[in-house]
Amino acid sequence: MAPDVHEANRQTVERMTSARPRLTTVGIARDEIPDMGERQLLHAGPPITWDRMSGPLRGAVIGAAIFEGWADNEASAAAMAAAGEFDFAPCHHHSSVGPMAGVTSPSMAVYRVENAEHGNAAFSNLNVGYGKVLRSGAYAPEVLAKLHWMNDVMAPMLATALAELGGLDLRALIAEALHMGDDCHNRCKAASVLYAKHLAPAIAGTADDRAAAAEVLTFLGDNALSVLNPVMAACKAMADAGHGVEGSTVVSAMARNGTDIGIRVSGMGEAWFTAPAPTPDGLYFSGFSSADANPDIGDSTITETAGIGAFAMAGAPAIVTFVSGTPRDALDATLEMYEITTGEHPHFTIPPLDFRGTPVGIDLRKVVELGITPRINTGIAHREAGIGQVGAGLVRPPVELFQEALVAYAEKYGL
Amino acid sequence: MAPDVHEANRQTVERMTSARPRLTTVGIARDEIPDMGERQLLHAGPPITWDRMSGPLRGAVIGAAIFEGWADNEASAAAMAAAGEFDFAPCHHHSSVGPMAGVTSPSMAVYRVENAEHGNAAFSNLNVGYGKVLRSGAYAPEVLAKLHWMNDVMAPMLATALAELGGLDLRALIAEALHMGDDCHNRCKAASVLYAKHLAPAIAGTADDRAAAAEVLTFLGDNALSVLNPVMAACKAMADAGHGVEGSTVVSAMARNGTDIGIRVSGMGEAWFTAPAPTPDGLYFSGFSSADANPDIGDSTITETAGIGAFAMAGAPAIVTFVSGTPRDALDATLEMYEITTGEHPHFTIPPLDFRGTPVGIDLRKVVELGITPRINTGIAHREAGIGQVGAGLVRPPVELFQEALVAYAEKYGL
Repeated sequence: MAPDVHEANRQTVERMTSARPRLTTVGIARDEIPDMGERQLLHAGPPITWDRMSGPLRGAVIGAAIFEGWADNEASAAAMAAAGEFDFAPCHHHSSVGPMAGVTSPSMAVYRVENAEHGNAAFSNLNVGYGKVLRSGAYAPEVLAKLHWMNDVMAPMLATALAELGGLDLRALIAEALHMGDDCHNRCKAASVLYAKHLAPAIAGTADDRAAAAEVLTFLGDNALSVLNPVMAACKAMADAGHGVEGSTVVSAMARNGTDIGIRVSGMGEAWFTAPAPTPDGLYFSGFSSADANPDIGDSTITETAGIGAFAMAGAPAIVTFVSGTPRDALDATLEMYEITTGEHPHFTIPPLDFRGTPVGIDLRKVVELGITPRINTGIAHREAGIGQVGAGLVRPPVELFQEALVAYAEKYGL
Repeated sequence: MAPDVHEANRQTVERMTSARPRLTTVGIARDEIPDMGERQLLHAGPPITWDRMSGPLRGAVIGAAIFEGWADNEASAAAMAAAGEFDFAPCHHHSSVGPMAGVTSPSMAVYRVENAEHGNAAFSNLNVGYGKVLRSGAYAPEVLAKLHWMNDVMAPMLATALAELGGLDLRALIAEALHMGDDCHNRCKAASVLYAKHLAPAIAGTADDRAAAAEVLTFLGDNALSVLNPVMAACKAMADAGHGVEGSTVVSAMARNGTDIGIRVSGMGEAWFTAPAPTPDGLYFSGFSSADANPDIGDSTITETAGIGAFAMAGAPAIVTFVSGTPRDALDATLEMYEITTGEHPHFTIPPLDFRGTPVGIDLRKVVELGITPRINTGIAHREAGIGQVGAGLVRPPVELFQEALVAYAEKYGL
């Protein structure tokens, strides 16, 4: 019998939007992330092997191998990777997400986000800021030193502060930031200062080392992406709550590994549908141009999957100074997404659209029928390993991805 | 010879908008505020005597007299006020501004804001939050206890933190918050968390008492009006930089004492032009209605005078949940203000208007000619002493005020 797609999609979106993600703690990946192996490296996007990895993903793998002490330098790390000594797996296979390369190794500190409504959890590594950072493929000594500082100094302080606060309601934080000019993907400025504001009293009140507390608060407050990773984990927790509804054509994951872009669909189990990752259009940091751009990379498209990011750009006009375009384009981006989505978010609203709920729940059928693909706000990584982020912009996945998924759906459900 | 009004107004606005207000310290009013007398009580708006003061201003005077230890209770404070034992003066006569009643007594902690461009300084008391607070006429024991905590615990910590930071650039902070959904008058949410973010590392890094530091950071972060008072002092410093330009018809102060509303004009020296204060339209806190509303009160209209507040509402659509109306009304409010202003602000811009500068420099002549009066975002105080803030809304001064000023201008300049 043909599935009741309408009802299945309604249920999917109802589950996604009723999820209540709370940031509960910061721990170590091997302890927190389900089934994390001792030689495992999680990465963004759909599955990929070393030989097909792009420069920034390779760079992040090299950095993580040195960070873990598995390799001494770039050459040995690359040789080990080529020899199959690391167990690569998508973050998404371990209830996790990571921005850009998304590489998460067993010793790295990670955020734990729990969905208080449906009981699932999701994870993400810590954000280290813009520019020359691991997630964009940089692995210089100062990059790794910063990672060690985050692991050794910042992470325990965050864990203590979160325990002191009894966790943090991320759905409320996102809702608030969407009224403060954020899209909560490429512009997380308000959300990050709100995050720092919540943590500040708990850090100041519990830290033994005043100088270290000041350093952590400066880093959290000055990095406009501080909260991106917990927000992504919140979106993963929300999207996962809607995954696995029989007959549903709603997209439950979109992710890029720098070579391929892949999607998963709520009613299609664990299958990935993939296509070559497109290259973003955008604005470049000083000294870089489109010739430096790697194809799109990162799990941060989980934000658009959950109804924020480019889907909420209408409320974030100032983002155009970072991703290109005009405030009118930002408005149009959101308006267009209502055409291909299933519902309007009951908790995430857009003031300039008279507080209309954000478009949420990308419907495969609508994407294919209308030929309108999801809009994505994204960072741009340099195509070579070792350099880092070079810009930010906009991108759309190819429609073939959705056509392929819809064909598979029709086969599975005998339509 | 008739003045070159066009050139005078251009100079006025050039001085206002090139001012660079920096928050430099927190001190005690008697030490900081120029010519502050030992028995002096500064208040919002134009000059007024005790017999004509409205309920909320009387309430704040009573609270300040008890806070100073001049009186033991309401009755004795009121008797002393009626007997002429307090020296009342507008904040504006002492380079100062205060929200709502604006009452500032000699022992109260005040912010010092210095205009790095023109050398003048401005002052404002500390913000204590919403509801039952001194500035709205409440003086219960818990209100005064909070004031003592702010003076004794918070103020010294802020002074130390500001010294550690080398001051804070308020023009930059306002510009940033205007891109984050604030109007920086009735919605100071982003500006206040940015303020808390800047101070947090300095407070955490310098405070000897961790519990007190946590308490101060909680208060600063949770009070969405924390930064209103420094922002008002910044606007006063900017407006004062444009005051006193011979021949200028630009308004350099608008202020209400709860009975009268008054304006000053750049080219008209120290004269006030006054009219009865209008009563705001708005939304009321639970349990209150328009029957409880006092006529408009406070110096916070210095924000509109300097080109923010209602003049920047187009960038703050979420404010309508607090002051009433729709996001379209917020957009229209700003658009209308371009009709009666002299210039567009080079530093304060509005993303949804394609980053157009805010309308700045209210021109008396345009107000009278077009019959369009300035829009003001405002808080609403209960009309009785002792109760506090009961809502927030919108108000416009009567056009007669501007007509009166223009007639006086014509007389002075022999037109």
